[in-house]
Amino acid sequence: MNNHLENLTILKLGGSVITDKSIQNQADTKTIQRIAKEISRISIASTPLILVHGGGSFGHPIASLYQIHKGLHSSSQKIGFSKTRSAMSNLNKIVVDIFLGEDIPVVSVQPSACTITSSGRVKHMDLEPTRSLLQFGFVPILHGDAVIDLAQGIAILSGDQIVTYLAKELPVKKVIFGTNVDGLLDLNKKLIPKVNNENFETLFMFAKESVASDVTGGMLGKLKEIEPLMKEGVETIILNAKKPGIIEEVLKGKEVVGTYFTQR
Amino acid sequence: MNNHLENLTILKLGGSVITDKSIQNQADTKTIQRIAKEISRISIASTPLILVHGGGSFGHPIASLYQIHKGLHSSSQKIGFSKTRSAMSNLNKIVVDIFLGEDIPVVSVQPSACTITSSGRVKHMDLEPTRSLLQFGFVPILHGDAVIDLAQGIAILSGDQIVTYLAKELPVKKVIFGTNVDGLLDLNKKLIPKVNNENFETLFMFAKESVASDVTGGMLGKLKEIEPLMKEGVETIILNAKKPGIIEEVLKGKEVVGTYFTQR
Repeated sequence: MNNHLENLTILKLGGSVITDKSIQNQADTKTIQRIAKEISRISIASTPLILVHGGGSFGHPIASLYQIHKGLHSSSQKIGFSKTRSAMSNLNKIVVDIFLGEDIPVVSVQPSACTITSSGRVKHMDLEPTRSLLQFGFVPILHGDAVIDLAQGIAILSGDQIVTYLAKELPVKKVIFGTNVDGLLDLNKKLIPKVNNENFETLFMFAKESVASDVTGGMLGKLKEIEPLMKEGVETIILNAKKPGIIEEVLKGKEVVGTYFTQR
Repeated sequence: MNNHLENLTILKLGGSVITDKSIQNQADTKTIQRIAKEISRISIASTPLILVHGGGSFGHPIASLYQIHKGLHSSSQKIGFSKTRSAMSNLNKIVVDIFLGEDIPVVSVQPSACTITSSGRVKHMDLEPTRSLLQFGFVPILHGDAVIDLAQGIAILSGDQIVTYLAKELPVKKVIFGTNVDGLLDLNKKLIPKVNNENFETLFMFAKESVASDVTGGMLGKLKEIEPLMKEGVETIILNAKKPGIIEEVLKGKEVVGTYFTQR
């Protein structure tokens, strides 16, 4: 058992990291495999971990086709809602199987089975299973999902929002957003290495959505989720998870290339 | 939207119905397909439905190998626990995809994401997502699963127990247990058509486990789950779901071959 959660870390793996966004339902199994190997070299006992992944070319095209993020307006969206959930479960299964192959005790936790949103924001999320899994030394793995929404019927719950919610409700020390870019880039595509309360507002004004069609809001959505984390003092890092070795390094506490969000 | 839940029915599809129990990870897709077609001819608006399925040759061999039902005693069981959940998700995916193919708005709800047991019995189950799905006219689909247990670390949550729990907490009118036998059989393998409070105890004494190695307790386990339903007046039927047409008939309210459990 592991009640030692003081180093609790959330690693978000973006859809752009674990899938090929240009081909529907195409997982980037090589990258997932490499990241799994890197995590297998971390001691889960000393760095308890929650994994969250995005939808990439599994969740996004189908959610977008059926306009799930806009709420339930027609009966045909019901099948689209189910298909979005099914697509996300399929991607989750690929990730889980690869991680289990590396003997990492990952346990899938389907967010839509324990979450209700209202106007797209988490209204209720049952965290008991996730909390208990952590205490027993498992690595819970959650993912962006299509959920029931009290105000609009159905909604998209982004992996990014799950991260923020978990970081607010659990004693999380560090949050790592693995993306396919080095971090937050300025208008000249140059990396912004440090963000804090002082320069956040200015940066936010200039942030552009990384993928305009993304139902979860791209980089702009990510920044909105990161703001409260930063203000609450949870160390948050955006990095390029496509780079070999970076996940292992950042989990071992080394300084890596990326954007670090800190209070000051 | 569908707030008209007075005919709420739970259909349990046993692992012996939807999988080939003799071949590991072999789904009986023909039977699942046939049952999906039968359900597609039912009006979900007038007969709201919850589906629950068992583990069969997906969940049982792996759960049994790692002795998940006996609790967490060694670190190697952790991977077995994850693998059991993964196997159940795989079977669930097959069922969901076939049902979606028949335009039934099934929505997978992973029980382990919202349930904690204590000594193998449900201690806590977040029913909000399931309840909301029903209200919006979806067909929630749950399944037997491996869950975190407060007393023993890990446990098996059988599909049968999920059925009983849901029937207790939701306004369920009818429960149908689809198995691969005609119903409860006497020692001469003859069908017992009616069971009530008066003859239950006697029958229970003679009930034999249908599959000795079954981690969820076979027919004896099923009877233990049915007893409180019967006493609370929920009409409960055990029938042979391998028989073409029987699911459609029973859902349409026709009398079918099977064992009917009623209060009197």
